[in-house]
Amino acid sequence: MSKRGYFIVFEGGEGAGKSIQVEILSSHLREDKFPFVVTREPGGTRIGEQIRAITHNQDNVDLDPVTEAYLMAASRAQHVRETILPALTAGKIVICDRYVDSSIAYQGFGRQLGSAAISRLNILAVNGAVPDLTILLDVVPKSGLRRRRHDRGTKDRLDLQDAAFYERVYDGYRRISHGKNGKYVIIDASRNIEQVATAVWEIVRPKIRLLKKGAV
Amino acid sequence: MSKRGYFIVFEGGEGAGKSIQVEILSSHLREDKFPFVVTREPGGTRIGEQIRAITHNQDNVDLDPVTEAYLMAASRAQHVRETILPALTAGKIVICDRYVDSSIAYQGFGRQLGSAAISRLNILAVNGAVPDLTILLDVVPKSGLRRRRHDRGTKDRLDLQDAAFYERVYDGYRRISHGKNGKYVIIDASRNIEQVATAVWEIVRPKIRLLKKGAV
Repeated sequence: MSKRGYFIVFEGGEGAGKSIQVEILSSHLREDKFPFVVTREPGGTRIGEQIRAITHNQDNVDLDPVTEAYLMAASRAQHVRETILPALTAGKIVICDRYVDSSIAYQGFGRQLGSAAISRLNILAVNGAVPDLTILLDVVPKSGLRRRRHDRGTKDRLDLQDAAFYERVYDGYRRISHGKNGKYVIIDASRNIEQVATAVWEIVRPKIRLLKKGAV
Repeated sequence: MSKRGYFIVFEGGEGAGKSIQVEILSSHLREDKFPFVVTREPGGTRIGEQIRAITHNQDNVDLDPVTEAYLMAASRAQHVRETILPALTAGKIVICDRYVDSSIAYQGFGRQLGSAAISRLNILAVNGAVPDLTILLDVVPKSGLRRRRHDRGTKDRLDLQDAAFYERVYDGYRRISHGKNGKYVIIDASRNIEQVATAVWEIVRPKIRLLKKGAV
Protein backbone atom coordinates (compact mmCIF):
# COMPACT_ATOMS: atom_id res chain seq x y z
CA MET A 1 0.00 0.00 0.00
CA SER A 2 1.34 3.43 -0.90
CA LYS A 3 -0.78 5.66 1.29
CA ARG A 4 -0.91 9.31 0.24
CA GLY A 5 -4.07 10.74 1.82
CA TYR A 6 -4.79 11.73 5.42
CA PHE A 7 -6.88 9.70 7.86
CA ILE A 8 -8.89 11.60 10.51
CA VAL A 9 -10.96 9.75 13.11
CA PHE A 10 -13.55 11.23 15.46
CA GLU A 11 -13.97 9.40 18.74
CA GLY A 12 -16.03 9.93 21.89
CA GLY A 13 -18.92 8.63 23.95
CA GLU A 14 -22.64 8.96 23.30
CA GLY A 15 -23.85 12.50 22.64
CA ALA A 16 -20.33 13.91 22.24
CA GLY A 17 -21.49 15.49 18.97
CA LYS A 18 -19.34 13.46 16.56
CA SER A 19 -21.87 13.44 13.69
CA ILE A 20 -22.42 17.19 13.64
CA GLN A 21 -18.69 17.90 13.91
CA VAL A 22 -17.98 15.50 11.03
CA GLU A 23 -20.59 17.43 9.03
CA ILE A 24 -19.12 20.86 9.82
CA LEU A 25 -15.56 19.71 9.07
CA SER A 26 -16.83 18.30 5.76
CA SER A 27 -18.29 21.66 4.80
CA HIS A 28 -14.90 23.30 5.48
CA LEU A 29 -13.14 20.75 3.28
CA ARG A 30 -15.76 21.23 0.56
CA GLU A 31 -15.05 24.98 0.55
CA ASP A 32 -11.37 24.17 0.52
CA LYS A 33 -11.95 21.94 -2.55
CA PHE A 34 -9.87 19.16 -1.02
CA PRO A 35 -11.01 15.64 -2.08
CA PHE A 36 -12.38 13.79 0.93
CA VAL A 37 -14.56 10.87 1.96
CA VAL A 38 -16.83 10.78 5.02
CA THR A 39 -17.62 7.43 6.55
CA ARG A 40 -18.60 5.79 9.85
CA GLU A 41 -18.30 2.66 11.97
CA PRO A 42 -19.89 0.27 12.47
CA GLY A 43 -21.19 0.33 8.92
CA GLY A 44 -19.62 2.38 6.15
CA THR A 45 -20.16 -0.37 3.54
CA ARG A 46 -23.10 -2.42 2.28
CA ILE A 47 -21.83 -5.48 4.20
CA GLY A 48 -21.03 -3.33 7.24
CA GLU A 49 -24.60 -2.04 7.38
CA GLN A 50 -25.83 -5.66 7.44
CA ILE A 51 -23.50 -6.27 10.41
CA ARG A 52 -24.66 -3.03 12.10
CA ALA A 53 -28.24 -4.30 11.81
CA ILE A 54 -27.20 -7.19 14.11
CA THR A 55 -25.18 -5.17 16.66
CA HIS A 56 -27.76 -2.37 16.97
CA ASN A 57 -30.92 -4.49 17.01
CA GLN A 58 -32.30 -4.09 20.53
CA ASP A 59 -33.93 -7.53 20.33
CA ASN A 60 -30.40 -9.00 20.33
CA VAL A 61 -30.02 -8.86 24.11
CA ASP A 62 -28.34 -12.29 23.91
CA LEU A 63 -25.43 -10.90 21.84
CA ASP A 64 -22.27 -11.92 23.74
CA PRO A 65 -19.66 -9.14 24.25
CA VAL A 66 -17.01 -11.28 22.53
CA THR A 67 -19.32 -11.86 19.54
CA GLU A 68 -19.94 -8.12 19.43
CA ALA A 69 -16.17 -7.46 19.38
CA TYR A 70 -15.74 -9.86 16.43
CA LEU A 71 -18.66 -8.29 14.56
CA MET A 72 -17.16 -4.81 15.00
CA ALA A 73 -13.83 -6.13 13.67
CA ALA A 74 -15.64 -7.83 10.75
CA SER A 75 -17.34 -4.58 9.81
CA ARG A 76 -13.98 -2.78 10.11
CA ALA A 77 -12.15 -5.32 7.92
CA GLN A 78 -14.66 -4.69 5.13
CA HIS A 79 -14.59 -0.93 5.68
CA VAL A 80 -10.78 -0.67 5.58
CA ARG A 81 -10.49 -2.68 2.34
CA GLU A 82 -13.50 -1.30 0.52
CA THR A 83 -13.53 2.36 1.58
CA ILE A 84 -10.63 3.62 3.71
CA LEU A 85 -7.52 2.21 1.99
CA PRO A 86 -8.72 2.92 -1.59
CA ALA A 87 -9.51 6.56 -0.64
CA LEU A 88 -6.16 7.04 1.14
CA THR A 89 -4.29 5.45 -1.74
CA ALA A 90 -6.08 7.88 -4.09
CA GLY A 91 -4.69 10.75 -1.96
CA LYS A 92 -8.00 11.73 -0.33
CA ILE A 93 -8.73 12.82 3.23
CA VAL A 94 -10.81 10.20 5.04
CA ILE A 95 -13.00 11.39 7.91
CA CYS A 96 -14.29 8.48 9.93
CA ASP A 97 -16.87 8.60 12.72
CA ARG A 98 -15.48 5.96 15.16
CA TYR A 99 -12.69 3.43 14.50
CA VAL A 100 -10.57 0.91 16.45
CA ASP A 101 -10.47 3.06 19.60
CA SER A 102 -14.25 2.74 19.84
CA SER A 103 -13.83 -1.03 20.04
CA ILE A 104 -11.11 -0.64 22.67
CA ALA A 105 -13.22 1.81 24.70
CA TYR A 106 -16.57 -0.02 24.39
CA GLN A 107 -15.60 -3.69 24.26
CA GLY A 108 -12.17 -3.50 25.91
CA PHE A 109 -13.06 -1.15 28.78
CA GLY A 110 -16.91 -0.92 28.75
CA ARG A 111 -17.52 -4.65 28.45
CA GLN A 112 -14.23 -5.39 30.28
CA LEU A 113 -12.75 -7.72 27.66
CA GLY A 114 -9.39 -5.94 28.05
CA SER A 115 -7.78 -3.36 25.77
CA ALA A 116 -4.89 -5.66 24.76
CA ALA A 117 -7.29 -8.44 23.67
CA ILE A 118 -9.32 -6.03 21.54
CA SER A 119 -6.20 -4.47 19.98
CA ARG A 120 -4.90 -7.92 19.05
CA LEU A 121 -8.29 -8.94 17.66
CA ASN A 122 -8.20 -5.95 15.30
CA ILE A 123 -4.71 -6.34 13.80
CA LEU A 124 -5.86 -8.32 10.75
CA ALA A 125 -8.91 -6.05 10.29
CA VAL A 126 -6.94 -2.79 10.27
CA ASN A 127 -4.34 -3.99 7.77
CA GLY A 128 -2.01 -1.07 8.48
CA ALA A 129 -4.66 1.67 8.15
CA VAL A 130 -3.75 3.68 11.26
CA PRO A 131 -5.27 7.18 11.77
CA ASP A 132 -3.00 10.17 11.15
CA LEU A 133 -5.13 12.19 13.55
CA THR A 134 -7.69 11.17 16.16
CA ILE A 135 -9.99 13.82 17.62
CA LEU A 136 -11.53 12.76 20.92
CA LEU A 137 -14.66 14.77 21.67
CA ASP A 138 -14.61 14.77 25.43
CA VAL A 139 -17.87 14.99 27.36
CA VAL A 140 -18.76 13.30 30.64
CA PRO A 141 -21.24 10.41 30.20
CA LYS A 142 -24.04 12.09 32.14
CA SER A 143 -24.16 15.14 29.85
CA GLY A 144 -23.59 13.09 26.71
CA LEU A 145 -26.41 10.67 27.43
CA ARG A 146 -28.77 13.56 28.26
CA ARG A 147 -27.93 15.17 24.89
CA ARG A 148 -28.39 11.89 23.07
CA ARG A 149 -31.78 11.22 24.60
CA HIS A 150 -32.81 14.74 23.70
CA ASP A 151 -31.65 14.40 20.05
CA ARG A 152 -33.04 10.95 19.25
CA GLY A 153 -36.55 9.70 19.68
CA THR A 154 -35.62 6.04 19.22
CA LYS A 155 -33.61 3.69 21.39
CA ASP A 156 -31.14 1.00 20.32
CA ARG A 157 -29.35 -1.82 22.13
CA LEU A 158 -26.70 0.50 23.60
CA ASP A 159 -29.34 2.65 25.28
CA LEU A 160 -30.09 -0.26 27.56
CA GLN A 161 -26.62 -0.22 29.19
CA ASP A 162 -26.17 0.95 32.76
CA ALA A 163 -24.35 4.09 33.86
CA ALA A 164 -21.27 2.15 35.07
CA PHE A 165 -20.75 0.89 31.51
CA TYR A 166 -20.57 4.44 30.16
CA GLU A 167 -18.22 5.48 32.96
CA ARG A 168 -15.85 2.65 31.97
CA VAL A 169 -16.04 3.70 28.30
CA TYR A 170 -15.24 7.31 29.26
CA ASP A 171 -12.33 6.25 31.42
CA GLY A 172 -11.16 3.95 28.60
CA TYR A 173 -11.00 6.79 26.08
CA ARG A 174 -8.89 8.87 28.45
CA ARG A 175 -6.49 5.98 29.00
CA ILE A 176 -6.17 5.30 25.27
CA SER A 177 -5.24 8.94 24.65
CA HIS A 178 -2.38 8.87 27.19
CA GLY A 179 1.05 9.23 25.66
CA LYS A 180 -0.25 9.70 22.11
CA ASN A 181 0.73 13.31 21.70
CA GLY A 182 0.35 14.88 18.30
CA LYS A 183 -1.76 12.21 16.67
CA TYR A 184 -4.38 12.33 19.42
CA VAL A 185 -6.19 15.54 20.30
CA ILE A 186 -8.74 15.86 23.12
CA ILE A 187 -11.32 18.59 22.58
CA ASP A 188 -13.68 19.77 25.32
CA ALA A 189 -17.04 18.90 23.77
CA SER A 190 -19.14 20.21 26.64
CA ARG A 191 -19.13 23.62 24.89
CA ASN A 192 -21.59 24.62 22.17
CA ILE A 193 -21.40 23.23 18.63
CA GLU A 194 -19.76 26.34 17.10
CA GLN A 195 -17.05 26.50 19.78
CA VAL A 196 -16.22 22.82 19.32
CA ALA A 197 -16.23 23.21 15.50
CA THR A 198 -13.79 26.10 15.76
CA ALA A 199 -11.48 24.04 17.96
CA VAL A 200 -11.64 21.13 15.49
CA TRP A 201 -10.90 23.35 12.49
CA GLU A 202 -7.94 24.96 14.29
CA ILE A 203 -6.43 21.48 14.63
CA VAL A 204 -7.26 20.22 11.14
CA ARG A 205 -6.59 23.33 9.01
CA PRO A 206 -2.79 23.34 9.42
CA LYS A 207 -2.67 19.63 8.55
CA ILE A 208 -4.64 20.25 5.35
CA ARG A 209 -2.26 23.09 4.40
CA LEU A 210 0.70 20.76 4.79
CA LEU A 211 -1.15 18.10 2.82
CA LYS A 212 -1.75 20.56 -0.03
CA LYS A 213 1.97 21.30 -0.08
CA GLY A 214 2.58 17.55 -0.26
CA ALA A 215 4.51 17.72 3.01
CA VAL A 216 2.53 15.21 5.10
CA MET B 1 -15.08 -24.04 33.27
CA SER B 2 -15.24 -27.61 34.53
CA LYS B 3 -15.88 -29.53 31.31
CA ARG B 4 -17.38 -32.97 31.82
CA GLY B 5 -19.02 -33.85 28.47
CA TYR B 6 -17.47 -34.94 25.19
CA PHE B 7 -17.07 -32.71 22.14
CA ILE B 8 -17.30 -34.36 18.68
CA VAL B 9 -16.81 -32.32 15.51
CA PHE B 10 -17.55 -33.41 11.94
CA GLU B 11 -15.40 -31.79 9.29
CA GLY B 12 -15.05 -32.12 5.53
CA GLY B 13 -15.64 -30.43 2.19
CA GLU B 14 -18.89 -29.94 0.31
CA GLY B 15 -20.94 -33.09 -0.22
CA ALA B 16 -18.86 -35.17 2.23
CA GLY B 17 -22.13 -36.22 3.90
CA LYS B 18 -21.64 -34.49 7.26
CA SER B 19 -25.34 -33.72 7.87
CA ILE B 20 -26.56 -37.27 7.28
CA GLN B 21 -23.73 -38.75 9.39
CA VAL B 22 -24.55 -36.34 12.24
CA GLU B 23 -28.15 -37.54 11.98
CA ILE B 24 -27.27 -41.24 12.06
CA LEU B 25 -24.84 -40.79 14.96
CA SER B 26 -27.61 -38.90 16.82
CA SER B 27 -29.99 -41.82 16.40
CA HIS B 28 -27.36 -44.17 17.91
CA LEU B 29 -26.92 -41.86 20.89
CA ARG B 30 -30.69 -41.59 21.30
CA GLU B 31 -30.95 -45.39 21.48
CA ASP B 32 -28.05 -45.34 23.89
CA LYS B 33 -29.97 -42.82 26.05
CA PHE B 34 -26.88 -40.64 26.39
CA PRO B 35 -27.68 -36.91 26.74
CA PHE B 36 -26.41 -35.04 23.70
CA VAL B 37 -26.78 -31.83 21.72
CA VAL B 38 -26.53 -31.50 17.93
CA THR B 39 -25.45 -28.19 16.50
CA ARG B 40 -23.75 -26.65 13.46
CA GLU B 41 -21.53 -23.82 12.25
CA PRO B 42 -21.91 -21.20 11.03
CA GLY B 43 -25.15 -20.74 12.93
CA GLY B 44 -26.16 -22.83 15.91
CA THR B 45 -27.64 -19.85 17.77
CA ARG B 46 -30.20 -17.14 17.03
CA ILE B 47 -27.41 -14.55 16.58
CA GLY B 48 -25.33 -17.06 14.60
CA GLU B 49 -28.16 -17.60 12.12
CA GLN B 50 -28.29 -13.82 11.56
CA ILE B 51 -24.55 -13.92 10.80
CA ARG B 52 -24.99 -16.96 8.53
CA ALA B 53 -27.57 -14.98 6.56
CA ILE B 54 -24.76 -12.54 5.67
CA THR B 55 -22.06 -15.11 4.85
CA HIS B 56 -24.35 -17.35 2.78
CA ASN B 57 -26.24 -14.63 0.88
CA GLN B 58 -25.13 -14.99 -2.73
CA ASP B 59 -25.76 -11.29 -3.35
CA ASN B 60 -22.82 -10.58 -1.01
CA VAL B 61 -20.16 -11.09 -3.69
CA ASP B 62 -18.34 -8.06 -2.20
CA LEU B 63 -17.76 -9.86 1.14
CA ASP B 64 -14.00 -9.64 1.76
CA PRO B 65 -12.31 -12.94 2.80
CA VAL B 66 -10.99 -11.26 5.98
CA THR B 67 -14.48 -10.00 6.85
CA GLU B 68 -15.79 -13.52 6.26
CA ALA B 69 -13.14 -14.93 8.64
CA TYR B 70 -14.21 -12.46 11.37
CA LEU B 71 -17.90 -13.25 10.83
CA MET B 72 -17.21 -16.98 11.20
CA ALA B 73 -15.31 -16.28 14.42
CA ALA B 74 -18.17 -14.03 15.65
CA SER B 75 -20.70 -16.79 15.05
CA ARG B 76 -18.37 -19.25 16.82
CA ALA B 77 -17.88 -16.98 19.85
CA GLN B 78 -21.65 -16.87 20.35
CA HIS B 79 -22.02 -20.60 19.70
CA VAL B 80 -19.30 -21.62 22.18
CA ARG B 81 -20.72 -19.48 24.98
CA GLU B 82 -24.42 -20.08 24.39
CA THR B 83 -24.51 -23.72 23.29
CA ILE B 84 -21.25 -25.71 23.40
CA LEU B 85 -19.75 -24.83 26.80
CA PRO B 86 -23.04 -25.01 28.73
CA ALA B 87 -23.78 -28.47 27.22
CA LEU B 88 -20.25 -29.75 27.95
CA THR B 89 -20.36 -28.38 31.48
CA ALA B 90 -23.68 -30.21 31.97
CA GLY B 91 -21.88 -33.44 31.00
CA LYS B 92 -23.51 -33.84 27.58
CA ILE B 93 -22.04 -35.03 24.30
CA VAL B 94 -21.90 -32.19 21.78
CA ILE B 95 -21.96 -33.12 18.09
CA CYS B 96 -21.04 -30.17 15.94
CA ASP B 97 -21.22 -29.96 12.13
CA ARG B 98 -18.08 -27.86 11.34
CA TYR B 99 -15.92 -25.90 13.81
CA VAL B 100 -12.56 -24.03 13.83
CA ASP B 101 -10.94 -26.40 11.32
CA SER B 102 -13.53 -25.32 8.75
CA SER B 103 -12.30 -21.74 9.15
CA ILE B 104 -8.69 -22.88 8.81
CA ALA B 105 -9.50 -25.01 5.74
CA TYR B 106 -11.80 -22.50 3.99
CA GLN B 107 -10.40 -19.10 4.97
CA GLY B 108 -6.84 -20.13 5.87
CA PHE B 109 -6.16 -22.45 2.91
CA GLY B 110 -9.08 -21.89 0.48
CA ARG B 111 -8.94 -18.08 0.60
CA GLN B 112 -5.20 -18.20 1.33
CA LEU B 113 -5.30 -16.02 4.47
CA GLY B 114 -2.91 -18.48 6.17
CA SER B 115 -3.68 -21.15 8.74
CA ALA B 116 -1.70 -19.43 11.53
CA ALA B 117 -3.61 -16.14 11.06
CA ILE B 118 -6.98 -17.91 11.22
CA SER B 119 -5.95 -19.96 14.27
CA ARG B 120 -4.87 -16.79 16.09
CA LEU B 121 -8.06 -15.00 15.07
CA ASN B 122 -10.12 -17.74 16.74
CA ILE B 123 -8.39 -17.95 20.12
CA LEU B 124 -10.78 -15.57 21.89
CA ALA B 125 -13.81 -17.11 20.14
CA VAL B 126 -13.03 -20.69 21.16
CA ASN B 127 -12.43 -19.88 24.83
CA GLY B 128 -10.84 -23.26 25.54
CA ALA B 129 -13.59 -25.36 23.91
CA VAL B 130 -11.35 -27.74 21.95
CA PRO B 131 -12.88 -30.87 20.33
CA ASP B 132 -12.20 -34.22 22.03
CA LEU B 133 -12.68 -35.95 18.68
CA THR B 134 -12.73 -34.62 15.12
CA ILE B 135 -14.06 -36.84 12.35
CA LEU B 136 -12.90 -35.73 8.92
CA LEU B 137 -15.17 -37.13 6.20
CA ASP B 138 -12.75 -37.42 3.34
CA VAL B 139 -14.00 -37.11 -0.22
CA VAL B 140 -12.23 -35.52 -3.20
CA PRO B 141 -13.76 -32.16 -4.21
CA LYS B 142 -14.96 -33.38 -7.61
CA SER B 143 -17.14 -36.17 -6.13
CA GLY B 144 -18.27 -34.04 -3.19
CA LEU B 145 -19.43 -31.16 -5.38
CA ARG B 146 -21.27 -33.56 -7.73
CA ARG B 147 -23.10 -35.06 -4.72
CA ARG B 148 -23.92 -31.62 -3.35
CA ARG B 149 -25.36 -30.40 -6.65
CA HIS B 150 -27.42 -33.56 -6.83
CA ASP B 151 -28.79 -33.17 -3.27
CA ARG B 152 -29.61 -29.46 -3.30
CA GLY B 153 -31.69 -27.57 -5.79
CA THR B 154 -30.53 -24.13 -4.61
CA LYS B 155 -27.15 -22.42 -4.82
CA ASP B 156 -25.45 -20.21 -2.25
CA ARG B 157 -22.38 -17.97 -2.27
CA LEU B 158 -19.95 -20.89 -1.87
CA ASP B 159 -21.29 -22.59 -5.02
CA LEU B 160 -19.80 -19.76 -7.04
CA GLN B 161 -16.19 -20.62 -6.08
CA ASP B 162 -13.85 -22.13 -8.63
CA ALA B 163 -12.42 -25.66 -8.57
CA ALA B 164 -8.98 -24.48 -7.38
CA PHE B 165 -10.58 -23.07 -4.22
CA TYR B 166 -12.05 -26.47 -3.31
CA GLU B 167 -8.73 -28.20 -4.07
CA ARG B 168 -7.01 -25.84 -1.59
CA VAL B 169 -9.70 -26.55 1.04
CA TYR B 170 -9.26 -30.29 0.55
CA ASP B 171 -5.48 -30.03 0.79
CA GLY B 172 -5.93 -27.80 3.89
CA TYR B 173 -8.00 -30.41 5.71
CA ARG B 174 -5.36 -33.06 5.08
CA ARG B 175 -2.62 -30.78 6.39
CA ILE B 176 -4.60 -29.89 9.51
CA SER B 177 -5.05 -33.59 10.31
CA HIS B 178 -1.30 -34.30 10.17
CA GLY B 179 0.22 -35.24 13.49
CA LYS B 180 -3.10 -35.15 15.36
CA ASN B 181 -3.36 -38.87 16.05
CA GLY B 182 -6.12 -40.06 18.31
CA LYS B 183 -8.18 -36.88 18.42
CA TYR B 184 -8.43 -36.67 14.63
CA VAL B 185 -9.89 -39.51 12.57
CA ILE B 186 -10.06 -39.50 8.77
CA ILE B 187 -12.89 -41.59 7.34
CA ASP B 188 -13.15 -42.47 3.64
CA ALA B 189 -16.46 -40.82 2.77
CA SER B 190 -16.47 -41.88 -0.87
CA ARG B 191 -18.29 -45.07 0.23
CA ASN B 192 -22.06 -45.32 0.68
CA ILE B 193 -23.87 -43.77 3.65
CA GLU B 194 -24.25 -47.00 5.63
CA GLN B 195 -20.57 -47.92 5.28
CA VAL B 196 -19.49 -44.46 6.44
CA ALA B 197 -21.99 -44.54 9.33
CA THR B 198 -20.60 -47.91 10.47
CA ALA B 199 -17.05 -46.53 10.38
CA VAL B 200 -18.15 -43.47 12.41
CA TRP B 201 -19.95 -45.57 15.03
CA GLU B 202 -16.93 -47.87 15.40
CA ILE B 203 -14.88 -44.81 16.33
CA VAL B 204 -17.43 -43.14 18.59
CA ARG B 205 -18.92 -46.14 20.45
CA PRO B 206 -15.83 -46.98 22.54
CA LYS B 207 -15.52 -43.31 23.55
CA ILE B 208 -19.14 -43.28 24.72
CA ARG B 209 -18.56 -46.44 26.75
CA LEU B 210 -15.61 -44.81 28.49
CA LEU B 211 -17.70 -41.69 29.04
CA LYS B 212 -20.45 -43.75 30.69
CA LYS B 213 -17.85 -45.23 33.02
CA GLY B 214 -16.72 -41.68 33.81
CA ALA B 215 -13.24 -42.47 32.50
CA VAL B 216 -12.90 -39.77 29.83
